[in-house]
Amino acid sequence: MTTDSREPGAESPIAKRLLLGDPLTSEKLDEQLLPKKMALPIFASDALSSVAYAPQELLMILLIGGTAFLAFSPWVATAVVILLIVVVASYRQLIKAYPSGGGDYEVASKNLGEVPGVVVASALLVDYVLTVAVSVSSGVDNIISAVPELNPLRVELAIGFVILIVIVNLRGVREASLVFAIPTYIFIGSVIVMVLVGLTRTALGDAPVASSAQYGVEPESLTQVAVILLVLRAFSSGCSALTGVEAVSNGVPAFRRPKVRNAQTTLTLMGGIAILMFAGLTVLALVANVHYAENPCHLIGFDCENTPQPSLMAQVSAATFGMGSIPFYIVQAATACVLLLAANTAFNGFPLLGSVLARDGYAPKALNTRGDRLVFSNGMIILGIAAIGVLVVYQADLTTLIQLYIIGVFVSFSLGQVGMVRHWRRTLRELHVAPPDDEDGTRTAEERRSARTGLVINSVGAAMTVSVLVIVTVTKFTHGAWLVFIAIPILATLMIGVHRYYRDVEAEIEPDDQTRFGAEGDVAIVLVGKLQKPVIKALDYALAARHEHTLAVHIAVSQAESDLLQKQWAEHDIPVQLVIVESPYRTFASPVAQFIKQWREKHGSSVVTVYLPQYIVGHWWESFLHNRRARRIANQLMLVHGVSITLVPWLLDSSELIYGRRSRPLPGQERAGLPSAQPAHHQRATRPAGPPDVAS
Amino acid sequence: MTTDSREPGAESPIAKRLLLGDPLTSEKLDEQLLPKKMALPIFASDALSSVAYAPQELLMILLIGGTAFLAFSPWVATAVVILLIVVVASYRQLIKAYPSGGGDYEVASKNLGEVPGVVVASALLVDYVLTVAVSVSSGVDNIISAVPELNPLRVELAIGFVILIVIVNLRGVREASLVFAIPTYIFIGSVIVMVLVGLTRTALGDAPVASSAQYGVEPESLTQVAVILLVLRAFSSGCSALTGVEAVSNGVPAFRRPKVRNAQTTLTLMGGIAILMFAGLTVLALVANVHYAENPCHLIGFDCENTPQPSLMAQVSAATFGMGSIPFYIVQAATACVLLLAANTAFNGFPLLGSVLARDGYAPKALNTRGDRLVFSNGMIILGIAAIGVLVVYQADLTTLIQLYIIGVFVSFSLGQVGMVRHWRRTLRELHVAPPDDEDGTRTAEERRSARTGLVINSVGAAMTVSVLVIVTVTKFTHGAWLVFIAIPILATLMIGVHRYYRDVEAEIEPDDQTRFGAEGDVAIVLVGKLQKPVIKALDYALAARHEHTLAVHIAVSQAESDLLQKQWAEHDIPVQLVIVESPYRTFASPVAQFIKQWREKHGSSVVTVYLPQYIVGHWWESFLHNRRARRIANQLMLVHGVSITLVPWLLDSSELIYGRRSRPLPGQERAGLPSAQPAHHQRATRPAGPPDVAS
Repeated sequence: MTTDSREPGAESPIAKRLLLGDPLTSEKLDEQLLPKKMALPIFASDALSSVAYAPQELLMILLIGGTAFLAFSPWVATAVVILLIVVVASYRQLIKAYPSGGGDYEVASKNLGEVPGVVVASALLVDYVLTVAVSVSSGVDNIISAVPELNPLRVELAIGFVILIVIVNLRGVREASLVFAIPTYIFIGSVIVMVLVGLTRTALGDAPVASSAQYGVEPESLTQVAVILLVLRAFSSGCSALTGVEAVSNGVPAFRRPKVRNAQTTLTLMGGIAILMFAGLTVLALVANVHYAENPCHLIGFDCENTPQPSLMAQVSAATFGMGSIPFYIVQAATACVLLLAANTAFNGFPLLGSVLARDGYAPKALNTRGDRLVFSNGMIILGIAAIGVLVVYQADLTTLIQLYIIGVFVSFSLGQVGMVRHWRRTLRELHVAPPDDEDGTRTAEERRSARTGLVINSVGAAMTVSVLVIVTVTKFTHGAWLVFIAIPILATLMIGVHRYYRDVEAEIEPDDQTRFGAEGDVAIVLVGKLQKPVIKALDYALAARHEHTLAVHIAVSQAESDLLQKQWAEHDIPVQLVIVESPYRTFASPVAQFIKQWREKHGSSVVTVYLPQYIVGHWWESFLHNRRARRIANQLMLVHGVSITLVPWLLDSSELIYGRRSRPLPGQERAGLPSAQPAHHQRATRPAGPPDVAS
Repeated sequence: MTTDSREPGAESPIAKRLLLGDPLTSEKLDEQLLPKKMALPIFASDALSSVAYAPQELLMILLIGGTAFLAFSPWVATAVVILLIVVVASYRQLIKAYPSGGGDYEVASKNLGEVPGVVVASALLVDYVLTVAVSVSSGVDNIISAVPELNPLRVELAIGFVILIVIVNLRGVREASLVFAIPTYIFIGSVIVMVLVGLTRTALGDAPVASSAQYGVEPESLTQVAVILLVLRAFSSGCSALTGVEAVSNGVPAFRRPKVRNAQTTLTLMGGIAILMFAGLTVLALVANVHYAENPCHLIGFDCENTPQPSLMAQVSAATFGMGSIPFYIVQAATACVLLLAANTAFNGFPLLGSVLARDGYAPKALNTRGDRLVFSNGMIILGIAAIGVLVVYQADLTTLIQLYIIGVFVSFSLGQVGMVRHWRRTLRELHVAPPDDEDGTRTAEERRSARTGLVINSVGAAMTVSVLVIVTVTKFTHGAWLVFIAIPILATLMIGVHRYYRDVEAEIEPDDQTRFGAEGDVAIVLVGKLQKPVIKALDYALAARHEHTLAVHIAVSQAESDLLQKQWAEHDIPVQLVIVESPYRTFASPVAQFIKQWREKHGSSVVTVYLPQYIVGHWWESFLHNRRARRIANQLMLVHGVSITLVPWLLDSSELIYGRRSRPLPGQERAGLPSAQPAHHQRATRPAGPPDVAS
């Protein structure tokens, strides 16, 4: 598939060989893909970890109205479970319809247009920050519940963990490894065991009793309306159990074939487990009659000044297994681990979304150059700083953070679902007009059926998620959620701005009738400072390129230097003519520009190629010690009409160390189903020290 | 002066024309140089401004021992004046011997060796920071003395001024302008007038009386030793009057011809004025019997809680002209202005010293690329931050800062003087062996005479400055000066480290017998993404360079894109063969590298030139939106043996705005005697967006 406009077939063999591609790659790609048993922990840690705080927040809000209000909790919990089922069902549809991994963003932008698309994207970005903040805070909560002595260090611990995660990710982390899988499975296992043990004990008449059961609660006196609002708030807080469900839909490409099937199965599995754990924990908490108060000081008899309120998870496991027992510590440890893993997932999802946005031109193209560690590093550092900022502002207080959290989640849920409804509608219309593509038209009939199912499911999903979004907004806006409503539009506007910019540039560089060939003349100028190996290499290459004319130009700022150079030039008798150009102002670029001008006056217009030696170094700091001058010269000469710059690399010994660097996995690699063995990856570790750059 | 190794004389006419240089330059350079009347304010503001605080600090220390100790002050002041005379005389010699503007650093490194050289350099760098801190604090002091309401804002004001100066300098400031000259002359004038008025009034029996005259002083009871130490401390504090004297010696190249003569005259003039003002102020302060206490609360009857202690300058001028009178405000305003100018001088001296250090390889070479605004900006921001740090730590408290200040000054004084002694010694030895270079040998005789004078003067200077350094160290070490003794070695070590690094690299790239010409083969690869103007330009240039082979290579990551490209390729029928290279991993560099490898296997080894289009943009933020990919590809391909990268610039419309930029003066330009009209300066404003850079 080589297009030969002139010399026919000269290159085709090579082209062919390359075209067919290195035979390894396809296998490589496959063995990189995730089996379900690995996919579950990777994509589920976020969703499952949320059951560590969802029941607690649900009961806590109800408790504001006093212990009597806990009677509402079964109903509220049921509502959450139903919602969870619906959302899972809807996402199964979404996965089927959009297996490319774009998730809600893709659905919204394809079916609802640009603005909803970027709104979803912004909401997701905000969520990634909050996922980190919420998960880490909850993780720290559970650690403190097990080791109360750490209470004074709450915020420091949280920040510490974020920094740790950032570092780990900067170093590169293989998500599809046991280290990630085991804690999730232990968490699932231990919690389910705990629920079973707890319920069996209850059945045997020895119901577990929480440490906080003894404390009474000062109820706030509430009006009719307030009661309803309170219940709704409890529901919205409980909805935090749904966060992270969308993760699978973004990771479809990472699944083993059949991708869609496996993804759907995993999603269902995850949903089932989540429901089991959420319901189980809520019930057990009610049985053990855990009193978890928004303001611990409302617990009558509880020393809220000096002792931290243990998390619901901790109270339940203490009640079930006994405080300080080994299973207790296992549960707490597993919980903390899973929550930190959930935080880690954000660091994988963030760059992925970034690259999708970049692909569509809503974010700097740089984010789409997979494998540019630098880009990812920056992204992760930004994410880390944002999360730390949030943690500091809200003092790592889970309850406050939850308020901000689920807005974004439900913004993307709702828009995603609405988008799906649109999608199915269109599909059905198309299927109507479409002629049956096989004789008896079974395929279309079947497609139509599946589309109808999809339409129904997603309509329900849309209806519910939208109404929940309304509830969440109403109940949480004044509790800090307004921040999210500021952040999302700002991000969305930025994205649209970037998109406009790219569009304008595209238009600007679109070839038109003026675009013609026919630059003529050809002169190579090798800039020579001292006579050193890099310069000689540059000269050598210039000669090898056999330009029409090849000149060596020395910008003389010091008489001594230029005399020495001419002496050496004669000694080495270099087959290139050396021109000395005086620079009274100690500038470099302008004398060269002037020289080029004069050359053209004499020899007529011609394309000029300026050769600059370019150091390649190994240590980051070396780049501060190297050819800024080459940089400046290149910058300025590139502004001269008809000049191009040729960088002739010179690898300093220090750059050898780069070959020692092992290739490191990139964030989100497994989630995107990309091969972890990035070819020539280690090369990315090098730093050209003197490229023509002033910016960025 | 063109060396023609092969084709004789082909280029010589151009070369000649360039060699002789644009006839304007020399004149231009001259008109840029400073007449004495401008040089004085530029170089003197630092030295003269110090009389605004020197007498105050001197008397203040003595007053610790009680009013009786003021009796010592005439003697201490005289000692300072004598020292000042000696130092001025010594620097006249230094200027004569080293007119290149290297100052103490040059003298020390040339005569005493590397380590003393870098120590001086470090001391000077530290001093630049402290000059800013001390001058600004003193300036704020004098403002507060005139407007006591501002007292609570002392630190904020100081920081504000530093930031202001940084901004002004970042914008570019023409030092040789009246704005800089006038305040200095007003300051000199008003202070001298004040002294005369004050003394006349005293002669007429109506001696001015300071506001603080009424307050008694609680004397500390002192031992014999303590008394001596106190007097010595007073002396060292008084020596702060000498700070800034070296400025002229660093600025010799900036003077009109005859440079040395003019510089010497200016130095003498400055010294005279400084002595006049210092002595005058001290006497007047004694007459008006100003009681300025280190701890205002030691002043009996002074409400130290609520009212700030007015500066000595303020008290004297209030006593002479009357508090709140117009002349009073003139004096205070002029003083404040001069002090801020003095701070500003540091922002000009800093980059100058930086470039000298860079030239000698003790600082990143980048600092020597004059006219790289970026470099200077960074330098000034660093200086600003350091100064602000110091101001915050010491709460802009002049007295504490003075303690740190003069150490550095005298370190460089002493080493400079010792160096000079060495210098003269050597000169004399050389003159002995040297044969008389004219028949009657008068020249040598005369030279010998002047060398002897120099030797005598500098020996005295060395002796005094060294002993003062000892005194200063002894008396101030415990008062905070130890910080300086930590900072200087650290800086010095860094500099030596940088020097070693450059030396090693030099050695590494020294041409040797292995260095041979003879790269053969020549293939140009134009990387083609979409068919857009920049790509077409790159193709055009590649063709113009008439390489042996020219190929267009497209890395196919999306089937659709590559199909489209091939279609367009055929349509535009481009005279270059298009090769499609599949990239299963969505990487770009490695498929190209692979292609090159295979090409060579087929066609034998050859030099490969890869053409990359390169956007040139106008706004800094645009660079974040542009070809990072080109960057990464270039970085990686430069690691492939025998590959060089050709950047073909494409100016986006936005880059047009750069031509609107006016050229701005660079810091230290006047001081270094460089032309302010840097040719093609505006070009520096552009930012290539996609150069092959990951580092810095």
